[in-house]
Amino acid sequence: MPRYALQIEYHGAPFAGWQRQAEQPSVQAAVEAALRRLEPDAPGIAAAGRTDAGVHATAQVAQCDLARDWDPFRLSEALNHHLRPLPVAILQAARVADDFHARFSAIERRYLFRLVSRRAPVTHDAGLVWQVRHPLALAPMQEAASHLLGLHDFTTFRSTLCQAASPVKTLDELTITEHPVPQGTEFRFHLRARSFLHNQVRSFVGSLERVGAGSWPPDRLRAALEARDRAACGPVSPPQGLYLCGVGYPEDPFAAAPQGGDDPVSAALRSDP
Amino acid sequence: MPRYALQIEYHGAPFAGWQRQAEQPSVQAAVEAALRRLEPDAPGIAAAGRTDAGVHATAQVAQCDLARDWDPFRLSEALNHHLRPLPVAILQAARVADDFHARFSAIERRYLFRLVSRRAPVTHDAGLVWQVRHPLALAPMQEAASHLLGLHDFTTFRSTLCQAASPVKTLDELTITEHPVPQGTEFRFHLRARSFLHNQVRSFVGSLERVGAGSWPPDRLRAALEARDRAACGPVSPPQGLYLCGVGYPEDPFAAAPQGGDDPVSAALRSDP
Repeated sequence: MPRYALQIEYHGAPFAGWQRQAEQPSVQAAVEAALRRLEPDAPGIAAAGRTDAGVHATAQVAQCDLARDWDPFRLSEALNHHLRPLPVAILQAARVADDFHARFSAIERRYLFRLVSRRAPVTHDAGLVWQVRHPLALAPMQEAASHLLGLHDFTTFRSTLCQAASPVKTLDELTITEHPVPQGTEFRFHLRARSFLHNQVRSFVGSLERVGAGSWPPDRLRAALEARDRAACGPVSPPQGLYLCGVGYPEDPFAAAPQGGDDPVSAALRSDP
Repeated sequence: MPRYALQIEYHGAPFAGWQRQAEQPSVQAAVEAALRRLEPDAPGIAAAGRTDAGVHATAQVAQCDLARDWDPFRLSEALNHHLRPLPVAILQAARVADDFHARFSAIERRYLFRLVSRRAPVTHDAGLVWQVRHPLALAPMQEAASHLLGLHDFTTFRSTLCQAASPVKTLDELTITEHPVPQGTEFRFHLRARSFLHNQVRSFVGSLERVGAGSWPPDRLRAALEARDRAACGPVSPPQGLYLCGVGYPEDPFAAAPQGGDDPVSAALRSDP
């Protein structure tokens, strides 16, 4: 069967997470149901990151095997048709080699966490950010984040439910940027690693928020890391600020993907000088 | 009675618009209900811009008269408490002179319109942007927009229901910027004028979209303007991409407003060196 990679964007709110579960809505089950509208016998799919309930994605990657030889653009269009009105969108589809695996072939995951600090409740971004009502200071959070970079035993920042074989991982990036919002500030945490432990990003952000609020000194993150003790972690942040926003592979499966452009209007515009 | 100005953010989706209406939810009625939780006899309020059903605001301004002498920060906090869980937030409150009028004292309105072009349906931004599935070209839209700047009879771009005394207005700004989104492009239209006619922004954007799509040459907007004929307008864009994002007054009523900072954490952070 030909194998395809799908790049998937979704709003996490209506779902109990990526992974299929009995009697709970999941993104995986939604995409599988759409695939089975195309091919009733389509097998189950696998994804690069099994996001938790309420967590979003802008670029999840999953693989699927189909019996027919689908044009990738037509495949994404057909899936989006059958996914409506759920907040799940196939951004790109691509034919990939039979040994491509969305999870096991991945060599990098990128996450974004959006944290808004302001007094008044958020309106447009409700469900899309974590809001705190007190001010946060950027520099201490940046100092604390620097202690987490590199190769460490991240037992402190790992859910007790985590199934990873080892708590030792390399964190390649944890940068924090500041963006003005009306009467407040949004802090964006940008994280990158080969792989992450369960609840690792939300454990980092929950602890860094304590530093930004002035409750923890920046050094406390180094001490927490060195403790290798889950009890040393700060409060785990809520899920709705978290976005899986990129998955890296040795070769980009979507490098040659069509850019959604074989409709008449696109074709006409492309032919413009 | 002391008069206060309120700066208000809201999500337009659940409301039939700003203005109070019998048997329909409105932002005005929501804010008035919150005010009457503070003072049962609080009179009705007035706003700078009477936004339509589904239109958002990040900085609507309204005035209210209250019997008590409220600390402005406490007033905004109390109103936000009573507005929950509606997507309406008081961003700032300020004591103003008795002759301040949110609508009649205003000398400038600013609007933003968000238009996303991509094939796959939007997920996180559903209800917050107008999406089209075909590509749009920026430069022709910018050229067409230039014809609309300045003092004109805007009859073409005015709802037949518009109650303004005159269709002659001065458009001070109509700039269009381009922002990447996953597998697509967001176009932001930034508009500024002393005042706008009913449906003027949505009539502009709906016509400019036809230019961006290649269906209309840029000059057609000049011809449409000169026709002074509502029938020469393009399709009016849907409301959910539109945001009232600023109101200007001879003196900024919020210039001296507290920045939400008299809680203990803020005070502690401010006292930091």
